[in-house]
Amino acid sequence: MRILSGIQPSGNLHIGNYFGMMSRMIGYQEEHELFCFIVNYHALTSVFDAPRLRQQTLEAACDFLALGLDPEKSIFWVQSDVPEVVELAWLLSNVTGMGLLERCHSYKDKIAKGLTPNHGLFAYPVLMAADILLYGSHKVPVGKDQKQHVEVTRDIAISFNNTYGETFVLPEPEIPQEVATIPGLDGQKMSKSYDNTIPIFCDEKALRKRVMSVKTDATPVEEPKNPDGNILFDLYALFLDADGRQQLRDRFLTPGLRYGDVKQELFEAILNYFRPYREKREEYVKNPDVVRAILKRGAEKARAIGSEYLDKARRNVGVNY
Amino acid sequence: MRILSGIQPSGNLHIGNYFGMMSRMIGYQEEHELFCFIVNYHALTSVFDAPRLRQQTLEAACDFLALGLDPEKSIFWVQSDVPEVVELAWLLSNVTGMGLLERCHSYKDKIAKGLTPNHGLFAYPVLMAADILLYGSHKVPVGKDQKQHVEVTRDIAISFNNTYGETFVLPEPEIPQEVATIPGLDGQKMSKSYDNTIPIFCDEKALRKRVMSVKTDATPVEEPKNPDGNILFDLYALFLDADGRQQLRDRFLTPGLRYGDVKQELFEAILNYFRPYREKREEYVKNPDVVRAILKRGAEKARAIGSEYLDKARRNVGVNY
Repeated sequence: MRILSGIQPSGNLHIGNYFGMMSRMIGYQEEHELFCFIVNYHALTSVFDAPRLRQQTLEAACDFLALGLDPEKSIFWVQSDVPEVVELAWLLSNVTGMGLLERCHSYKDKIAKGLTPNHGLFAYPVLMAADILLYGSHKVPVGKDQKQHVEVTRDIAISFNNTYGETFVLPEPEIPQEVATIPGLDGQKMSKSYDNTIPIFCDEKALRKRVMSVKTDATPVEEPKNPDGNILFDLYALFLDADGRQQLRDRFLTPGLRYGDVKQELFEAILNYFRPYREKREEYVKNPDVVRAILKRGAEKARAIGSEYLDKARRNVGVNY
Repeated sequence: MRILSGIQPSGNLHIGNYFGMMSRMIGYQEEHELFCFIVNYHALTSVFDAPRLRQQTLEAACDFLALGLDPEKSIFWVQSDVPEVVELAWLLSNVTGMGLLERCHSYKDKIAKGLTPNHGLFAYPVLMAADILLYGSHKVPVGKDQKQHVEVTRDIAISFNNTYGETFVLPEPEIPQEVATIPGLDGQKMSKSYDNTIPIFCDEKALRKRVMSVKTDATPVEEPKNPDGNILFDLYALFLDADGRQQLRDRFLTPGLRYGDVKQELFEAILNYFRPYREKREEYVKNPDVVRAILKRGAEKARAIGSEYLDKARRNVGVNY
């Protein structure tokens, strides 16, 4: 089964990203064909700062490689290194009704927020459809907010196949059911937009400061603590196995526990858990040309497969002659 | 000066096309850098028939080569052989306000006619902007109906240059002032959509039939005819120099002129005028691989220039890394 996943080059990866989506996504490479790419064309709809985009693109690559994405098992590349995808988006545009795009939440939400919409924001779902269809993807793991875009992709693929004859695989969204929401420092969902994240790769001092600011309740030291719904408990539990979780629960229920001690332990647990990744990442950051070479090789592999679908689409619409 | 002109692969070239735009356009190659391409990506917004598009693309190439477009003097190619243009269109999309596209006549007119709009129709002006900007075009000869699209191109280029730094040449529309409207068989503007055309390259029998059906008034043979506003006079005049036109005027004003005779003369004048072109065209039609090779060579030249602008745009938005 071919699984496709796009990565936003948005920078400052946090443990919510990691436990929410990344580790699962990287796990697909063990049993499936994983196609994974950094969506820098999409980022252009809202990032108008070239040095920042360049840096965040390379950082996203370093993050994913460090965290275990294996360019031998997976195909890993940067979207703009396979510009064929934009050509396919044009071919799809002509069988994409305006109404379909006007109904997309992502666009409607941005207008509702008072953002001045540009055509890139509006056309985004067509490019996303091209991303998916160019590689004959079967499954696209997405959050609930992106499910509609996979449905739009199916609609576009059906419209293309009906108009020009069977060309594309119809993809399915894959919405992980059991992913718990990772709480941020303040208990809301961990998200950059709430500024409540615990970054994975920041320096130790900054990391410690973040962990020490996890919001806790005012239960006195000498009373038992309720682990259920406790942010600190939930965050620490991410790094523990079932036994470890039970022990932590027992400690919470035993009078005398100091939240400050648990925070220190959590800080160390995070450091220990990500230490090998951090070291690997530093290697990549020091050697950006190694990263670029990996990405370019990935783009060649992606292009080899994408070209087959694109050529078929070109023939079927008649732009060959 | 670099002049860019796009050709619709719409088939069945008629003398309205030729005297209205083509001969003038081909004339640019003598004094300017002419960039001329067949807009098959654009045609996809309304042609959903691959064999027809393929055939009309090749026919348009044969027409223009036969009528004097010189691939040594000009750069002549098929749009889809330089897919870089679609990539540029994506980069432009993100600095193109939705309002700009919503105000385009071409789109509004199609909605007003009750056509179900697809996203290709809507995004058309962005692709046209990319066509123009990719080659650093200075002038774009257009009919009045296309003037707005060149203005939109300027707006997009200004927006891109303001956002990312100086990147593109601002093009100017070139609207020929003195082109007379060429009347069709019924006196309306000659146009395929009115089915009133005189095709240039149809067979002789069909051509004669068309010419014989030019609408004339009911003035009796023995009376003088008024040449002013006379369709037959206006069509014949296209093939005459000033002296010939004066003589024709005198014959109209002299009693005894038979319209049937003038029609026969016009038929012969058309045949004679286009005979060398017709013969040249038949050569091309018999040797499509020669035509394809010319177009592919043209695409290479176009791509060499287009790549410079595209690379600059890619660097300026930051999709290199």
